[in-house]
Amino acid sequence: MATIKDVARLAGVSVATVSRVINHSPKASESSRLAVNQAMEQLQYHPNANARALAQQSTETLGLVVGDVSDPFFGAMVKAVDEVAGQTGNFLLIGNGYHNEQKERQAIEQLMRHRCAALVVHAKKVPDDDLEVLMKQVPGMVLLNRLLKGFEARCIALDDRYGAWLATRHLIQQGHTQIGFICSTHTISDAEERLQGYYDALKEHGLPSNDRLVAWGEPDEVGGEQAMTELLGRGKPLSAVACYNDSMAAGALAVLSDNGVNVPEAMSLIGFDDVLVSRYVRPRLTTVRYPIVTMAQQAAQLALALANGTPLPEVTNMFSPTLVRRHSVSGPG
Amino acid sequence: MATIKDVARLAGVSVATVSRVINHSPKASESSRLAVNQAMEQLQYHPNANARALAQQSTETLGLVVGDVSDPFFGAMVKAVDEVAGQTGNFLLIGNGYHNEQKERQAIEQLMRHRCAALVVHAKKVPDDDLEVLMKQVPGMVLLNRLLKGFEARCIALDDRYGAWLATRHLIQQGHTQIGFICSTHTISDAEERLQGYYDALKEHGLPSNDRLVAWGEPDEVGGEQAMTELLGRGKPLSAVACYNDSMAAGALAVLSDNGVNVPEAMSLIGFDDVLVSRYVRPRLTTVRYPIVTMAQQAAQLALALANGTPLPEVTNMFSPTLVRRHSVSGPG
Repeated sequence: MATIKDVARLAGVSVATVSRVINHSPKASESSRLAVNQAMEQLQYHPNANARALAQQSTETLGLVVGDVSDPFFGAMVKAVDEVAGQTGNFLLIGNGYHNEQKERQAIEQLMRHRCAALVVHAKKVPDDDLEVLMKQVPGMVLLNRLLKGFEARCIALDDRYGAWLATRHLIQQGHTQIGFICSTHTISDAEERLQGYYDALKEHGLPSNDRLVAWGEPDEVGGEQAMTELLGRGKPLSAVACYNDSMAAGALAVLSDNGVNVPEAMSLIGFDDVLVSRYVRPRLTTVRYPIVTMAQQAAQLALALANGTPLPEVTNMFSPTLVRRHSVSGPG
Repeated sequence: MATIKDVARLAGVSVATVSRVINHSPKASESSRLAVNQAMEQLQYHPNANARALAQQSTETLGLVVGDVSDPFFGAMVKAVDEVAGQTGNFLLIGNGYHNEQKERQAIEQLMRHRCAALVVHAKKVPDDDLEVLMKQVPGMVLLNRLLKGFEARCIALDDRYGAWLATRHLIQQGHTQIGFICSTHTISDAEERLQGYYDALKEHGLPSNDRLVAWGEPDEVGGEQAMTELLGRGKPLSAVACYNDSMAAGALAVLSDNGVNVPEAMSLIGFDDVLVSRYVRPRLTTVRYPIVTMAQQAAQLALALANGTPLPEVTNMFSPTLVRRHSVSGPG
């Protein structure tokens, strides 16, 4: 493999000049820039990113920790962060936390070892205290979908409780009084907050809450299928169900369809997140929009600005979800 | 930030010993291993991955180029490769090629600059000649979903033509004679091969092909909706449609449902890939299985073995798709 010395020799300049061209130094003249780029191409020389990172004590790498990249919610997050990385000449390094405390911690530490000065972290399992230690070590670390006390300005989160309140209130406004909730078994704040928002709306409208109207599952289609089956099996009168997320709603919808329960005529259904699946299924899902693309973009911009010491962009630290009306909600039959 | 010298001082050992412990050298004694690990923890010292990579002229990083991580097909691919990376103590670095020649090339070169010795590349747009140059430069580079002449042993691909033939033959065997095809507008071999497989099956069974029965769109739900709308609009008699992929089939299904055309009673529909969406939609999609998880795992194992000079795993270089029968295909009404 060609070395920087080979490039210098072929271009007829010093190694220092080659280094200046590679690092886009304003001190490099246009003629040496041309000669060096030509030599690099001819020799198929690729500057060593690790050497650059070591010399500069920073990288052109933006780190991102997500839950699980194969989940469409995180897929949208990755794409949004990658777009910001691309626009700012950074390369994206991704770690998966797989909703597991140890793996989340490993992913963050791996990215730190790769000297990602800018880090966007979606980690719900690492305890507050431990996260605080990491936040202090990496000034360019930003938390996505989590609010850490004392670091609010470096967090970008969603008001989950308000979102579930919004969904449930929408069902109540359509005339429903027997409303179920399909919840995630993951012990993270999102699940607790969304369940609480559902209870808030019931209470506010003088409707009694009942544990028999709440069913649980993994936050995916299979979990939604199981929870809906459970709700149907309990035989309690029910005309509407709010769901933890769209994937669970899609699973619930499938079970209702298989059992001849028409949506929305016999059962109204509302999701959460507004990921692609909500537009796939029939009827199209009424849902609550999680503005993940905007949030992820802002988190990436904030992390880069913090890491580079450039002026901080104006960001919203706590986003509000909004209602998206499609065709899975109507009045009670 | 603590340095390796601080760690050595606190642990009461030499810098060389710290380095041995970090690099898991068998020469480090158990007592120094303990002292160094304790000191690293106390000082919150994270070994610099870039320095290690530079010293060893290799990284513990496995590079992956995908089309677009937010597409569920690539999400499954990333997860499979990440699992192999995790099992072998490697960290995954991901680049998006976005189905664009220049971006694919940039993503590969960025990973090369990060000195990923093992690379799994899904790139359909970079021309054969250019890819050949890159393959020669990086012995640990493996192509996924592409067969490059002269490098067949470092390619893991799928027989797309056979898959589409299988899908179309299944429709013919159910008694259909008026069969449409919804194809992708992307000018990649997958699209050409699948269309060809459809023609092969028609020809083999003495059925005439007709360009008016083929419609085109982007390989996603919106593209599928547009292509199905186009087919319906042409008014040619049609009782079954084979689709380029499941996302397009989901879009086609939605259009049929919105127009009161029952699947499979009035129209049979078959997908390709067997991604999650095929199980979401109702009726569940009959489709052709693309064993992407197995293929991606094998590609990762092969790339790591090639990069490390370890014995090569036994891999299948050309995979065969299989038929998955669900509920979107029946005989003509």
